[in-house]
Amino acid sequence: MELKPRDPDWEVRVRTSFNAQNFMTHLGAELVHLAPGAVDIELKMQDTLTQQHGFFHAGATSSVADSAAGYAALSLFAASTGVLTSEYKINLLNPARQPVLIARGRVVKPGRTLTIAKSDVIGVEDGAEVHVATGLFTLVSVPGMKD
Amino acid sequence: MELKPRDPDWEVRVRTSFNAQNFMTHLGAELVHLAPGAVDIELKMQDTLTQQHGFFHAGATSSVADSAAGYAALSLFAASTGVLTSEYKINLLNPARQPVLIARGRVVKPGRTLTIAKSDVIGVEDGAEVHVATGLFTLVSVPGMKD
Amino acid sequence: MELKPRDPDWEVRVRTSFNAQNFMTHLGAELVHLAPGAVDIELKMQDTLTQQHGFFHAGATSSVADSAAGYAALSLFAASTGVLTSEYKINLLNPARQPVLIARGRVVKPGRTLTIAKSDVIGVEDGAEVHVATGLFTLVSVPGMKD
Amino acid sequence: MELKPRDPDWEVRVRTSFNAQNFMTHLGAELVHLAPGAVDIELKMQDTLTQQHGFFHAGATSSVADSAAGYAALSLFAASTGVLTSEYKINLLNPARQPVLIARGRVVKPGRTLTIAKSDVIGVEDGAEVHVATGLFTLVSVPGMKD
Repeated sequence: MELKPRDPDWEVRVRTSFNAQNFMTHLGAELVHLAPGAVDIELKMQDTLTQQHGFFHAGATSSVADSAAGYAALSLFAASTGVLTSEYKINLLNPARQPVLIARGRVVKPGRTLTIAKSDVIGVEDGAEVHVATGLFTLVSVPGMKD
Repeated sequence: MELKPRDPDWEVRVRTSFNAQNFMTHLGAELVHLAPGAVDIELKMQDTLTQQHGFFHAGATSSVADSAAGYAALSLFAASTGVLTSEYKINLLNPARQPVLIARGRVVKPGRTLTIAKSDVIGVEDGAEVHVATGLFTLVSVPGMKD
Repeated sequence: MELKPRDPDWEVRVRTSFNAQNFMTHLGAELVHLAPGAVDIELKMQDTLTQQHGFFHAGATSSVADSAAGYAALSLFAASTGVLTSEYKINLLNPARQPVLIARGRVVKPGRTLTIAKSDVIGVEDGAEVHVATGLFTLVSVPGMKD
Repeated sequence: MELKPRDPDWEVRVRTSFNAQNFMTHLGAELVHLAPGAVDIELKMQDTLTQQHGFFHAGATSSVADSAAGYAALSLFAASTGVLTSEYKINLLNPARQPVLIARGRVVKPGRTLTIAKSDVIGVEDGAEVHVATGLFTLVSVPGMKD
């Protein structure tokens, strides 16, 4: 499936919106890859992000998975529309205790109103990859909402 | 359905584990209600928690929903077992732009290995409540994992 | 939350559409309760509906849960719109081996385009109720689609 | 990820169990592909399987998706354990109005107790494939349950 942006300024728009997400800054997340329908977000382990066993909190893992899916969707939206997450489901597959997480958001089915995306979160340690989480997301395109 | 804790120290155990979740501290979340199979977590709006439109980020909303569900489950677990989230699904029902969110985690079906819980997130503004999100969570009881 | 039908003919419309679902007939499902935003569907145990252990197949349980949620949503839709299930998640809580299942679909959040509903499936045996499944559903209102 | 069966009789076991699912027979579903961690199930369009617009009912689509995921999991289980679906989530991506559906169940993360699988449902018409649905499933291995 070839995914085509409808907004020629899609790249600036996604980066501007990501930078406006204070929560991503608060976590320390970075947008490390951007293509039409595909966004990768990286999160380095820090003490502030842990649950009681010292792993990444499921909420931190899910937050980057959600932003990666949301921006993968936004990269394909028409100009002058904003993105909201309607719902998602995530399976936490392995303990997230690697030094770096990468959330790979990919559009599965683009649409005018609803876009379905998946997000796979990979933990990276010493060059090896662990599949930490996989999720499915429904994103809504909201006309007139600045993003 | 009557829910009975199997560990007489359930209350101390849940509070200790919650306090050990650095991520909850980083968000500014507080445990405000605790009963067998029921945990409420409160999150006050701060600039650090927003997405690009100034609402609570879906990741912040989900994080407190997840912790509320997880601790509702842990409150019923046997001693010397830890809790991990296996998977969850959440629907974001209304924009989360109220000054305060309360995530109400409630056990739906307790079990020795798997416990199913729901979490409803309410936004509170001027005494009025808005149903911000609803989710279903599968929590796993892990023997020998300190919580 | 008070739920008001937008179509004065909502009741006839839901019953007509349910009767047009051949799959519900094939399963032997019956619409046993109908109110604005609330639909109950009953399914009696038959040999044709079982999985390998003789319980109701998860697919049969989910099918009535889905129809109950979908018709709870349709009962609130404007005239001349149809209903499609966009996505759902279901947790199977207890073995479905009772003589009768009742799926109770209830609208959680009505909307012009997206409606969120839940569905709880109850197994009934000798007057006792077992909570067999609980699910969350996103239903889409499709203008111009006859239902 | 290489997936290895733990039971040398995995193939006979999966086929025997599938044939014992009366519900699959009632739908007209056929097991058309079987490998360790991978099962395809085919469902031909029939009048008995439709919703009110003449498409496959979401419940029929989900039923074959669930069985494909469940048997992909069972193919990797130890002998003398049975499989139950704990929960799943499915997104219906495109109208299911093709003459044939194929549900492709694939194990994402095998485990002793919990196995996570995905299932993609493809509609086939005149040699062209349409992505009809995608879902994530949690399967439980139940010791001592004959499958």
